[in-house]
Amino acid sequence: MQHEIDIEVRYYETDGQGMVHHANYFQYFELARVKMLKEKGHDYAELERQGIFLVVHNIGCRYLKPAKFGDTLRILTTVTRATAARIDHAYQVLRKNDGLELAAGQSTIACVDREGTIRRMPDFLVDVH
Amino acid sequence: MQHEIDIEVRYYETDGQGMVHHANYFQYFELARVKMLKEKGHDYAELERQGIFLVVHNIGCRYLKPAKFGDTLRILTTVTRATAARIDHAYQVLRKNDGLELAAGQSTIACVDREGTIRRMPDFLVDVH
Amino acid sequence: MQHEIDIEVRYYETDGQGMVHHANYFQYFELARVKMLKEKGHDYAELERQGIFLVVHNIGCRYLKPAKFGDTLRILTTVTRATAARIDHAYQVLRKNDGLELAAGQSTIACVDREGTIRRMPDFLVDVH
Amino acid sequence: MQHEIDIEVRYYETDGQGMVHHANYFQYFELARVKMLKEKGHDYAELERQGIFLVVHNIGCRYLKPAKFGDTLRILTTVTRATAARIDHAYQVLRKNDGLELAAGQSTIACVDREGTIRRMPDFLVDVH
Repeated sequence: MQHEIDIEVRYYETDGQGMVHHANYFQYFELARVKMLKEKGHDYAELERQGIFLVVHNIGCRYLKPAKFGDTLRILTTVTRATAARIDHAYQVLRKNDGLELAAGQSTIACVDREGTIRRMPDFLVDVH
Repeated sequence: MQHEIDIEVRYYETDGQGMVHHANYFQYFELARVKMLKEKGHDYAELERQGIFLVVHNIGCRYLKPAKFGDTLRILTTVTRATAARIDHAYQVLRKNDGLELAAGQSTIACVDREGTIRRMPDFLVDVH
Repeated sequence: MQHEIDIEVRYYETDGQGMVHHANYFQYFELARVKMLKEKGHDYAELERQGIFLVVHNIGCRYLKPAKFGDTLRILTTVTRATAARIDHAYQVLRKNDGLELAAGQSTIACVDREGTIRRMPDFLVDVH
Repeated sequence: MQHEIDIEVRYYETDGQGMVHHANYFQYFELARVKMLKEKGHDYAELERQGIFLVVHNIGCRYLKPAKFGDTLRILTTVTRATAARIDHAYQVLRKNDGLELAAGQSTIACVDREGTIRRMPDFLVDVH
């Protein structure tokens, strides 16, 4: 079960090399996760109001080709593992117009309460992701 | 009474034109205000814990010459007006190595409580700024 | 002639107060200008390849109500003046779901060549904006 | 041979949870690499003018404890491998005041020319890093 989101590169996301700065891919991954949640009927803003905070435990990315301003990126996101303790995602970043793979990433997120203490991932997140 | 802070341009703050993106100057101004507070003995993180939140009511900047990666910027900040309702700052951004003026800005900040309701600016902020 | 763009607040655009950081509005304004250009048939990435660079000469914003993660913002942009030397824009930021005005801004952009020297704004930009 | 840099958390680097957004650690790592270069006598801005561009090939981070506004972070950076093709770094992020480990990361950078083609890492970078 793969989730798809298209993101247009914003001008300020490029750096002095005219390419998307590598740190911005982690913001794209976050957008992908939030949209994925939303399509499953969960609003992340609402989850936080209920005291359910998702935090990134680890994240990484491998860069194959640069993305430029003017590119639309297609991010394909897959849940590769989901337990009460953590959810793992894999991300593939393609240039939309020709399908060229630009980057690939993965992350593990965990769930904390308002005080930052690790808590069980709610069942509806484990199931629907 | 003028406050001075030096900020080295960070690589990711430049955009596709190789120049510091104009929106980043407002982050520099924020750094200047926070440092100014600190030199007066006030820690902004501590103020927030006490329920004192400073919010920007309006802000603007005029750009004269571009800043580049490798530049160190000197920001001169002055309080131009301080009342129980608001504090106005003026900012001058110079290239440190030759003193060339790169930009000039101004802002008005107000004070809100934890719920976002406007409150009187604490006296110690009006006085010491 | 007013241009309209909807922007969903991204999680990382909020700050420690849970609100959209004030500097991010200037990134939203840039998005609005770029989209406005695109709807007129001009691709900003393409303009840069042709040596036409648009730079912000001055910009400002007044904040009325905070925007939060979960909000969709509607930005209404108007060209208030366009000459061979500069184009002025005015921006109105509304919360989309109820139309509440959150912020209002204005900017002046100018045109430079690859070396950063001010040049005449191309006619097609003055006309179509 | 370990490099050390202290970075004060900036307010806008925190997100809606009041913590430093995870993507910002990759900006800190970049700062650490640039400073490390500088201490070895190499100015990255100057390298780019000479057509030597360093690009991130892969990067990752594991988060142990959150960083907050008000924290000063100490980043310890080590070159774990350096060849003509790539330089690997390891990063340790500590909270300066008590030495608590907040995060740990690693990256591989490569060298490209002005056109983005992979080139040999210059000897002086392999040696001195």
